[in-house]
Amino acid sequence: MAGLPATTAKTRRGNARRLRTAIVRAGSQQIGRLTAAMEHAAEAAAGTTTPGPEDTHDPFRLVPRWHFAMLNDTERNEALARAIQEIVRPGDLVLDIGAGAGLLAMLAARAGAAKVISCEVNPLVAEIARQVVTAHGLSDVVTVVPTYSYNLQIGRELSRPADVILSEIVDCGLIGEGILPTMRDARTRLLAPGGRLLPGRARIYGALCESEAIHRLNRVDTALGFDVSLMNVVATAGHHPVRLSTWPHTLLTETAELAEFAFADGPLDEGSAKIALPVQRAGVAHGVVAWFAMDLTPTVTLRNDPGNPGSHWMQAYIPFDQPRHLAAGEVHEFTLRWSDTQLRTA
Amino acid sequence: MAGLPATTAKTRRGNARRLRTAIVRAGSQQIGRLTAAMEHAAEAAAGTTTPGPEDTHDPFRLVPRWHFAMLNDTERNEALARAIQEIVRPGDLVLDIGAGAGLLAMLAARAGAAKVISCEVNPLVAEIARQVVTAHGLSDVVTVVPTYSYNLQIGRELSRPADVILSEIVDCGLIGEGILPTMRDARTRLLAPGGRLLPGRARIYGALCESEAIHRLNRVDTALGFDVSLMNVVATAGHHPVRLSTWPHTLLTETAELAEFAFADGPLDEGSAKIALPVQRAGVAHGVVAWFAMDLTPTVTLRNDPGNPGSHWMQAYIPFDQPRHLAAGEVHEFTLRWSDTQLRTA
Repeated sequence: MAGLPATTAKTRRGNARRLRTAIVRAGSQQIGRLTAAMEHAAEAAAGTTTPGPEDTHDPFRLVPRWHFAMLNDTERNEALARAIQEIVRPGDLVLDIGAGAGLLAMLAARAGAAKVISCEVNPLVAEIARQVVTAHGLSDVVTVVPTYSYNLQIGRELSRPADVILSEIVDCGLIGEGILPTMRDARTRLLAPGGRLLPGRARIYGALCESEAIHRLNRVDTALGFDVSLMNVVATAGHHPVRLSTWPHTLLTETAELAEFAFADGPLDEGSAKIALPVQRAGVAHGVVAWFAMDLTPTVTLRNDPGNPGSHWMQAYIPFDQPRHLAAGEVHEFTLRWSDTQLRTA
Repeated sequence: MAGLPATTAKTRRGNARRLRTAIVRAGSQQIGRLTAAMEHAAEAAAGTTTPGPEDTHDPFRLVPRWHFAMLNDTERNEALARAIQEIVRPGDLVLDIGAGAGLLAMLAARAGAAKVISCEVNPLVAEIARQVVTAHGLSDVVTVVPTYSYNLQIGRELSRPADVILSEIVDCGLIGEGILPTMRDARTRLLAPGGRLLPGRARIYGALCESEAIHRLNRVDTALGFDVSLMNVVATAGHHPVRLSTWPHTLLTETAELAEFAFADGPLDEGSAKIALPVQRAGVAHGVVAWFAMDLTPTVTLRNDPGNPGSHWMQAYIPFDQPRHLAAGEVHEFTLRWSDTQLRTA
């Protein structure tokens, strides 16, 4: 099918306005559904209804399923155990940001911390952590606080600035769960002078990637000759997870370091880096496949590179806005931008 | 670590109550976030703010990313094209349930339908479909209605009962998007006598599956010796998608048909089936891996079995509540239950 007939500027403006209105309607619909589910959940909490067979504890995926893969990731757990044993000293006051099931907090207690304040923004996860900590007899040492670390105050939740801050709020692309703004805030307000941070540093690596299959997880052009590319208005603009080994792909360049973050004293603001990569194989680069190496301590590093399929973290895929045709031997330049939670290309 | 110390019945009741309360708090938090995002989106719709670099058209994943893989699934698209060409006759009034980007509706128009009413519950997707249909010059034939099919009325959206009802609202486990209640309602209220349905029939197949790796995507026991099994209160109880080829696994039985649905005249209520499967290999069955064969028409069938990795549908995994130790040669019995949207085992 040839291209669609041209539209007038007025039609285009009207269509854009209607899409923006539809976003609000779609969001309101979600709010309505969630409200109905929570009214039902509130009745169950009040004991005025008997839960039915479909009333799981989590009717709306309030806790993402990846918590299970994460808690079962032995390499991650053992690295955290080694690193926490190394960084926490007997008597320390420890701040743990992102309690999850309470694992890091309990490891800090096991390492001799006098007190661990563990904050968790999801109230359901926080209650699970509280019960897990209590069941292990550690509630004298570990206090779970159901809030963002941004809301913690010295003299309130924390008696004084922490000797150690632990935070493994890291997604496939390192920054997707907000470790940059979290550490930016916490290291300034909540850490004692000379205090220690875990992770200490992290680097993002990546390579240009040709993969129609991955490209098509987040972009569409035509289907059976019909132009359905308008759907791309809801494509993910930032990075999203992919298990690279699942999809046919060719890396067109060597792996290069794309960005580095020093959590104790480096810049953690939004930023960008100009990347220049020598093209080793001619091809069509659809985007950048990226992963991290995170130094929990100087001696303990966790990685989610494609050669580590046991990691529960997939790789991060950062789409180019348009595929780029590359010739072997050229040096391809692009800009990697990072906001507080998203990796993008430009 | 040995088991946790016993708790009193009072403690257990208190913990259960606090978990139920935490669910409501977690849901309220989500509602608050979504409300803030929609206030922002409403300002953008009203033109009172300029969208920033993070203001994508879909800030809250209001449209799931699988729409792209689905629209790019050539096997699916071509099967739908063949089947719609076969089932739609010139002059038909067609009801399309679940417009998506409008593909099925446009295929029905191409096949000669006089009128297509295409309903889509997601207002953002519905607006995309409306614009796609209009851009193809088909808005005289296709009308997109942003609502559930349950809300459609003869004499209002539909001038008379439809000659054909099309609906490809099917997830990896066939029923997860509600095709059973949708067809139950639509065939009774919205279909003309002698009218045709697409899909006509569908079967669910499955086999008992041993896979620690898949089991651990949705269950946890201990981590570093700490009992974190309380996290299982937020495990998915019904079926969830898995790409079987990604994970080490052993099928312990042959594949068997687990359920069949005849959309025109068979029962589409919640139900169950007793399944008895001869065990071919001794092992630990963690659950059932299942997939469907969907007869769009008697001659066009779509499948998402593990041997069809090109399908955008993954397989469905239905966990057992507890792993089951099976001996070779025994016949293992279990019950498959289906609600309006979930497959479960018992």
